[in-house]
Amino acid sequence: MPQTSSLDTDPYASRFGNSWELAPRLDPVVWDWDASGPLSRQQLSDFEDRGYSALPQLVSTNRARSLLAEARYLQSTLDPNLDHVISEPTSQEIRSIFRVHQDNEYFAKVCRDESIVAVARQILGSDVYLHQSRINFKPAFQGKEFFWHSDFETWHMEDGMPRMRAVSISISLTENDEFNGPLMLVSGSHKSYVRCVGETPDEHFRSSLKNQEYGVPSREALHLLVEQGEIVAPKGGPGSAVMFDCNTMHASVGNLSPYPRTNLFLVFNSVENPLEAPFGGTEPRPTFLSYRP
Amino acid sequence: MPQTSSLDTDPYASRFGNSWELAPRLDPVVWDWDASGPLSRQQLSDFEDRGYSALPQLVSTNRARSLLAEARYLQSTLDPNLDHVISEPTSQEIRSIFRVHQDNEYFAKVCRDESIVAVARQILGSDVYLHQSRINFKPAFQGKEFFWHSDFETWHMEDGMPRMRAVSISISLTENDEFNGPLMLVSGSHKSYVRCVGETPDEHFRSSLKNQEYGVPSREALHLLVEQGEIVAPKGGPGSAVMFDCNTMHASVGNLSPYPRTNLFLVFNSVENPLEAPFGGTEPRPTFLSYRP
Repeated sequence: MPQTSSLDTDPYASRFGNSWELAPRLDPVVWDWDASGPLSRQQLSDFEDRGYSALPQLVSTNRARSLLAEARYLQSTLDPNLDHVISEPTSQEIRSIFRVHQDNEYFAKVCRDESIVAVARQILGSDVYLHQSRINFKPAFQGKEFFWHSDFETWHMEDGMPRMRAVSISISLTENDEFNGPLMLVSGSHKSYVRCVGETPDEHFRSSLKNQEYGVPSREALHLLVEQGEIVAPKGGPGSAVMFDCNTMHASVGNLSPYPRTNLFLVFNSVENPLEAPFGGTEPRPTFLSYRP
Repeated sequence: MPQTSSLDTDPYASRFGNSWELAPRLDPVVWDWDASGPLSRQQLSDFEDRGYSALPQLVSTNRARSLLAEARYLQSTLDPNLDHVISEPTSQEIRSIFRVHQDNEYFAKVCRDESIVAVARQILGSDVYLHQSRINFKPAFQGKEFFWHSDFETWHMEDGMPRMRAVSISISLTENDEFNGPLMLVSGSHKSYVRCVGETPDEHFRSSLKNQEYGVPSREALHLLVEQGEIVAPKGGPGSAVMFDCNTMHASVGNLSPYPRTNLFLVFNSVENPLEAPFGGTEPRPTFLSYRP
């Protein structure tokens, strides 16, 4: 029986008791306003306000197309039963491939690209490392929806990430439009921490990667956050990106279009925010989900 | 064992064999170009090209709000186990209420409204009657997706509608935006008839209203139709409407927003297109789905 999270020792405690709470964020969003580039002061300010930034061309279209070709090759050749490979709930079709910055030279190279890493360093005000990398496939006609969640809530409770000092960058390898299940974010939601109800079962990650059941924010909390901000869904072509704070609520609907939506998802954590024991009291998740340098 | 559909006797045969086909439409889309109003010649021409028209204010905002209040009252008071009331697959929450033009005076009145009926008469070039009426609720956070389909394929095979001479009008009673699971249509898809594979089991309607399994167009056919046209999702406030041909492919994604999407859905059929025996060889469906005057 895992130890439950407690407000006495953890300001970001969650998954205890039967009620939810909107708690204030205790950490900065932008950690270094004085660092030089690549983001302008206005971009930093917008990111601080909204909890996300749309980056229309983070990598070139050609490079995105090459990465897509490599991603599809991996999708067609990897064993869907590997631990770090996740398939659709209703088929053997591969939905996510984790740890691509370690396992694949093409993806390793883009993950070290200075034009990308420098953005994460600037936001987080320190050196950074990759907490997680993955390719997400959202197949045509059958890509499934993903309910609203804060990644930080999971990373705190299940991975032991102590503070909100991580940033995610989702790089589109395909067109990302209104109809292929784009990432939706709640603008401004990163400023509140939603404590969720319930407890974390051991090995929760095995099911949560397919269907989130624990660490789910209440509908009342989500309604409030949307009323305070708004739902947005930045669109863009191959090479466009969305960067968002680790605590920004996000979700996506199913993909009913004939066009897959594939993206490379990178999570940079500050080296000054190293993982501890999971705050939910469970065993740490595998390193493909949550790297410990 | 129902008799299967045959190309020898039925140009719109479907659900036989193991292969799909894109067959040409054999009926006009606009049946009377000379009728005076309410649609302009340009509107008729656009409808003929695209298979749908967005009508930004078919009923007044105030009237839409009154109808919404009545719809919510019905949703909260009707027994979800009634035959003509359909609940969500995973809960008792009411998702659709059929036959509202017969059972409810408020809805009966709007269904007879000359400003609405005249549009249907103009398109279909004859007097019309209501083949079906229903309120659709797409609840906040949990409204489910509905896969692509042509209504005509079902109405032909399961209800015995002989020709493509019916038109649907979906009137928004709430805001209808990008995030609450709006109706998506494939522009131009009404010009082709997709023969589906497989047979129609008896009493198919009991499951098909929750999860479509038969009469599902193939992914290859859908891909072709989208490549020939495009996916559109007209947006609008309360009182806005989308009118579409009985054979236009349409679908909707789930509603993950905190706002329900509720609409009044009316299907007008030409009096010159009376129902026959179902072309799939099954028993006729109940009259709340398919009225026979």
